[in-house]
Amino acid sequence: MKLWDKGRKLDKGIELFTVGNDYALDQALVEYDCKASIAHAKMLAKIRVISSAEAKKLEGELRTIIDMSKKGKFDIKASDEDCHTKIENHLVSVLGNLGKKIHTGRSRNDQVLAALRLYEKHELKGVVALIGSLRSAIGACAKKYGSIALPGYTHMRKAMPTTIKDWFSAYDAALQDDEKIVRFTLTLIDKSPLGSGAGFGIPVIGLDKKWTAKELGFSSVMETMYCQNSRGKYEALIVDALSQVMMDLNKIASDLILFSMGEFGYFSLPPELCTGSSIMPQKKNPDVLELLRAKYGVVAGYSTQIKMIYPNLISGYNRDMQLTKEPLMKAIGTTKGCLSISALLFGELVVDKDACAKALTPEVYATEEAYNLVKKGVPFRDAYKEIGKKFS
Amino acid sequence: MKLWDKGRKLDKGIELFTVGNDYALDQALVEYDCKASIAHAKMLAKIRVISSAEAKKLEGELRTIIDMSKKGKFDIKASDEDCHTKIENHLVSVLGNLGKKIHTGRSRNDQVLAALRLYEKHELKGVVALIGSLRSAIGACAKKYGSIALPGYTHMRKAMPTTIKDWFSAYDAALQDDEKIVRFTLTLIDKSPLGSGAGFGIPVIGLDKKWTAKELGFSSVMETMYCQNSRGKYEALIVDALSQVMMDLNKIASDLILFSMGEFGYFSLPPELCTGSSIMPQKKNPDVLELLRAKYGVVAGYSTQIKMIYPNLISGYNRDMQLTKEPLMKAIGTTKGCLSISALLFGELVVDKDACAKALTPEVYATEEAYNLVKKGVPFRDAYKEIGKKFS
Amino acid sequence: MKLWDKGRKLDKGIELFTVGNDYALDQALVEYDCKASIAHAKMLAKIRVISSAEAKKLEGELRTIIDMSKKGKFDIKASDEDCHTKIENHLVSVLGNLGKKIHTGRSRNDQVLAALRLYEKHELKGVVALIGSLRSAIGACAKKYGSIALPGYTHMRKAMPTTIKDWFSAYDAALQDDEKIVRFTLTLIDKSPLGSGAGFGIPVIGLDKKWTAKELGFSSVMETMYCQNSRGKYEALIVDALSQVMMDLNKIASDLILFSMGEFGYFSLPPELCTGSSIMPQKKNPDVLELLRAKYGVVAGYSTQIKMIYPNLISGYNRDMQLTKEPLMKAIGTTKGCLSISALLFGELVVDKDACAKALTPEVYATEEAYNLVKKGVPFRDAYKEIGKKFS
Amino acid sequence: MKLWDKGRKLDKGIELFTVGNDYALDQALVEYDCKASIAHAKMLAKIRVISSAEAKKLEGELRTIIDMSKKGKFDIKASDEDCHTKIENHLVSVLGNLGKKIHTGRSRNDQVLAALRLYEKHELKGVVALIGSLRSAIGACAKKYGSIALPGYTHMRKAMPTTIKDWFSAYDAALQDDEKIVRFTLTLIDKSPLGSGAGFGIPVIGLDKKWTAKELGFSSVMETMYCQNSRGKYEALIVDALSQVMMDLNKIASDLILFSMGEFGYFSLPPELCTGSSIMPQKKNPDVLELLRAKYGVVAGYSTQIKMIYPNLISGYNRDMQLTKEPLMKAIGTTKGCLSISALLFGELVVDKDACAKALTPEVYATEEAYNLVKKGVPFRDAYKEIGKKFS
Repeated sequence: MKLWDKGRKLDKGIELFTVGNDYALDQALVEYDCKASIAHAKMLAKIRVISSAEAKKLEGELRTIIDMSKKGKFDIKASDEDCHTKIENHLVSVLGNLGKKIHTGRSRNDQVLAALRLYEKHELKGVVALIGSLRSAIGACAKKYGSIALPGYTHMRKAMPTTIKDWFSAYDAALQDDEKIVRFTLTLIDKSPLGSGAGFGIPVIGLDKKWTAKELGFSSVMETMYCQNSRGKYEALIVDALSQVMMDLNKIASDLILFSMGEFGYFSLPPELCTGSSIMPQKKNPDVLELLRAKYGVVAGYSTQIKMIYPNLISGYNRDMQLTKEPLMKAIGTTKGCLSISALLFGELVVDKDACAKALTPEVYATEEAYNLVKKGVPFRDAYKEIGKKFS
Repeated sequence: MKLWDKGRKLDKGIELFTVGNDYALDQALVEYDCKASIAHAKMLAKIRVISSAEAKKLEGELRTIIDMSKKGKFDIKASDEDCHTKIENHLVSVLGNLGKKIHTGRSRNDQVLAALRLYEKHELKGVVALIGSLRSAIGACAKKYGSIALPGYTHMRKAMPTTIKDWFSAYDAALQDDEKIVRFTLTLIDKSPLGSGAGFGIPVIGLDKKWTAKELGFSSVMETMYCQNSRGKYEALIVDALSQVMMDLNKIASDLILFSMGEFGYFSLPPELCTGSSIMPQKKNPDVLELLRAKYGVVAGYSTQIKMIYPNLISGYNRDMQLTKEPLMKAIGTTKGCLSISALLFGELVVDKDACAKALTPEVYATEEAYNLVKKGVPFRDAYKEIGKKFS
Repeated sequence: MKLWDKGRKLDKGIELFTVGNDYALDQALVEYDCKASIAHAKMLAKIRVISSAEAKKLEGELRTIIDMSKKGKFDIKASDEDCHTKIENHLVSVLGNLGKKIHTGRSRNDQVLAALRLYEKHELKGVVALIGSLRSAIGACAKKYGSIALPGYTHMRKAMPTTIKDWFSAYDAALQDDEKIVRFTLTLIDKSPLGSGAGFGIPVIGLDKKWTAKELGFSSVMETMYCQNSRGKYEALIVDALSQVMMDLNKIASDLILFSMGEFGYFSLPPELCTGSSIMPQKKNPDVLELLRAKYGVVAGYSTQIKMIYPNLISGYNRDMQLTKEPLMKAIGTTKGCLSISALLFGELVVDKDACAKALTPEVYATEEAYNLVKKGVPFRDAYKEIGKKFS
Repeated sequence: MKLWDKGRKLDKGIELFTVGNDYALDQALVEYDCKASIAHAKMLAKIRVISSAEAKKLEGELRTIIDMSKKGKFDIKASDEDCHTKIENHLVSVLGNLGKKIHTGRSRNDQVLAALRLYEKHELKGVVALIGSLRSAIGACAKKYGSIALPGYTHMRKAMPTTIKDWFSAYDAALQDDEKIVRFTLTLIDKSPLGSGAGFGIPVIGLDKKWTAKELGFSSVMETMYCQNSRGKYEALIVDALSQVMMDLNKIASDLILFSMGEFGYFSLPPELCTGSSIMPQKKNPDVLELLRAKYGVVAGYSTQIKMIYPNLISGYNRDMQLTKEPLMKAIGTTKGCLSISALLFGELVVDKDACAKALTPEVYATEEAYNLVKKGVPFRDAYKEIGKKFS
């Protein structure tokens, strides 16, 4: 039975259309919905809307659901609509009338938001950790090969000499920025929506929103009407933060694909990161890097998708916002997968010292030559012209 | 075994990363890959690379696979990599060495493209049909209610009188354009990539590409190197065409959501298209319309996603393009679902004649009044000012 | 004076905000607005709302404006609001009361649309012509260098041999598709919005819309309410078509930037297409190609911009749509500029036969070797493994 | 003369293509380029590459340029290429050989970045200030009308009672988040790129990068190779931050447009914010709000544009990134304009108490009624059904 059901029969096709694949996405939210419900039940006991014994029973069954879900035994099907309906129906089937009481003082609107926000906080912490692992892997690789000199490029043309250490330091600095961006995002969204009801608060019974927020580890209670308005906005913020991560992985992948070409050979990729061709016997293709590169577009595209669903809607809940859940979740999953693979990659990457040395052809030192003239008192613009003649 | 396998062990995590959810998406391609393989096998017999008997056996087994797939008995799992590998492995397990011969004269690159293009053609035909059904539904609804007069709006302010017929004719005209756009797209992509191999043709054995193209119902053979270059480009073209459809459904949904508000009441929605609230007993929410509205952003977002994966890659196959498959398929599925629901919607929609009549307040006729003065010889600018005074 | 002015004073800041840079963009529309006005005036004479003599006078002055505009002597300033207001004010200042009559039977809404659509038709024809020129330039270059063999790449790794002719044929085939796409777009939008007024027709005076449409070279009259609904939709369609062109220029630029690197040297760029560095004396940077490559993102970004302005608005004119004018115009200008530069580029491009020949290293022929074994009766999968050993 | 000129003649069309409208955009950068040059000159004196007297002369002339620019007397034309070239040429024309020395120890690459980053910091501070002003304006409006009760909406249907104060508090909370987002962005980008040269440092002469950074008010020196890699990345970050601001202005505008419709009448807009129709005498159109609403799409579109230019490029400077300057600058200008107009708007907005009261129809209190039953001991689900009957 749906949470809003009044006993009318819904057309099957319409039901499928509205449910979409929410039921599948919601598998990831079960744990967070249960945790929010436990906190809510305890608070209801605290304000004496239910008894302490009732709260305990509800908590017990909700913990059972979390366990079942972790063991893959709490499958949400399309006919269940979503995790919230499934969980409440489960409570009612086990606890009878008591199960129904969990929804007192709550709307599905703030319930969904609470579960989603707990999920988002958890996942963003995971992203921070993975950025850390990748930075370690890059650091270790830099330690191994850092002193190797090779050409730096501008405009995809050899420019000036640089080193693996300098190159990888740029990756690290970018990822350090990403870490800050993700941490900031985490801090900004850390507000409890519980108690905002359908967006206009819960009348009459006097919830203790601060208590629930603290119990769930939120650092504050969110402004009531802002809760629903923030949907889509926060999702865009999160996926934009992830896009920043993906921008850097895209650049790393672009560098490695180019400079591991036979024509350069600066890097060589571990065979595990390459695949073959079904027709060309000689091929070792950098598929993993190509997918890493391409997934930037996937994640940045999800941000655009959210931003295209968002506009021109009035304040308060609009069902449209449900469709921001999939791009959010997929963007998170994709980014985490890419960070893991990247860390693996730097663990196996080989830098070819000879190939790098061979590539340091004379023109790479032209700027240094010009500056040697400057050191001797020649104005830079004249030194530049003097040396320029050698390469024209 | 992978089509390009040379016997090395792939790290499990990397394998999952490269396979992604291709295996799930590929379920939709089984039929088309088999059909392309049948045509390819026949052609191989024609040019005497295999015998007619061999081609017949291959065809038989491939038809079996199509049947199995239609009955849901040809499940592709992550470990199968994709439909192409799974199908070839199946052929080998049933037909032994003969199974291996199906890949002669083919690369996975042109094989994937062929299946995908057959799929795209089929789906676009489906979209054309669904646009037709929706136009019929709108036409029938216009027949029922067309003569009802109501205010037209500009800037979301009452402007001038119009009728349901005029209003719905605009929907129909837009959908007629969409039909042309989708049909054009269908015509443009109707080129056979089979025989292009990895993008540089198949050496030595002399394929008959024209024959295969004709057998599969393609209107021409595609330029060899263009086959791979067109990947992503054609997908963007298709999803842009679908975005045009979704733009119109977005407008229809926006109109109906607004004008079925209690404050207007011009339209009333069938209860099947509405859902309730988990907290507010009085609510009848237009969820179906809100989702219809939002799915424009979903589809248009997929177009951006494809366009973000595409840029700055050189000619020839790049693995990046694999990631255009999901946005393509999801955009198609979403658009088809929305067209179906919209047709259903117009079958049930009710126009409230009284509410419309009541809304035709005097200011809606101001322009007509001004033109009545023009008719009497007053210059339009003066008539405009004269009538304007009544409403300032 | 504004066309809708009733004598109230607008705050200056607000006026600037609403005008935006419309006045600057509108410079390109002057000619088309005048042409539409001439046709409208003639039609008003035909239906006897004004006299033939009046229509002639209006036509005369409108032609004067077109001349002035072509000579750069009809500057639209921010204080003029836009070209439509400026033109009407000019007519009034020269022709007195007669100038006011031009707006009879018209709203600024259909007036803007008419000018815009004439502009769009003209520009798209220009794009078709430029695609033609580029195809000729590529064809001429292919004639010069076509027989040169060089490696084809997949996954940015050497794959199989190909030729300049095959390579450039792929460019040509893509551009041929683009030509069809732009031509189709041109045909689809070829409908006259004149007579739709503010979106609900012109009451009382009985316009002859078919006559005006024919006079202006439109192939049909557009459905009344669809006129305003098509704004944004058609602009998205056009910019998506241009994005298709830009996709191909992006690929061409990406190819040429990579393969003109010193490490490959297949192509060499004319010095006119390169710029230097302010610090590195040796540099010859392919700036023109980099900008060509990047402008894909600019144009595709404009399409997204239009699609982000569009959603969730009801039928009928919404001022929001004014903001689709800039991305449309900039996308057109950018695409035309890029097509011109590309044609120039192929006129000067040099293919280095020796560098290409040197790059045809043995592994490029692996597939051919495998097929030679197939020819001798070895099953392809076994031949593949046999040859594969040589390169592992 | 270009900074990289070696005396070759560039084709005029190509020159225009590469310069684009950089020269116009660069007008905003003159001040920042001069300030960075002053700091650079002082540092060159400090490390004794030039004398103190020379540094003073350079500083003097650079301050003159800043003054000229503020008075509109330092116009950059297309033939000047950009502000950096124009400024150096000016220095040379006034100071002779000394003017040439300013480029010692610098590349145009780090020079552009330095000017851009100073500009970005200045502009983001401006955005923070404007958010503050808007919050004050909303606060003042809330003080005037806050106690007025009106219906809150979900799914664009009346839901539960709320107040102007609650409504506007949600706007304020969102803008408070935006303020944090913009401040964070400001902190993140606050790193000096000066001294990174073309991306690989300046050889031989030993710059004091820390000193220049401090002199310019940067909080740290940026990692050398990261400087160029951050281009596009930081621009995306900034425009994404601005998109967050625009999301909220979009919602505010959407609310006000809807609820100032005659059919609601909760808000009434000052006549200065409305425009008329050229054909309909009665119209007062909320153009300003419509443009405010639409400009969200403009800004969010610019973010996508930057993100489409960015991908699949290797480390180090690529000319492509120049094209991120226009979307960045336009996004900043648009957002600032919208924030100003919004503050103005809330200063003039009128809330109609009677219209709000009249809209509080019985169904708005259904939830409260249900909770009154809950208070009396009825389980919520039963209370919900009981009250639901009254409205079915």
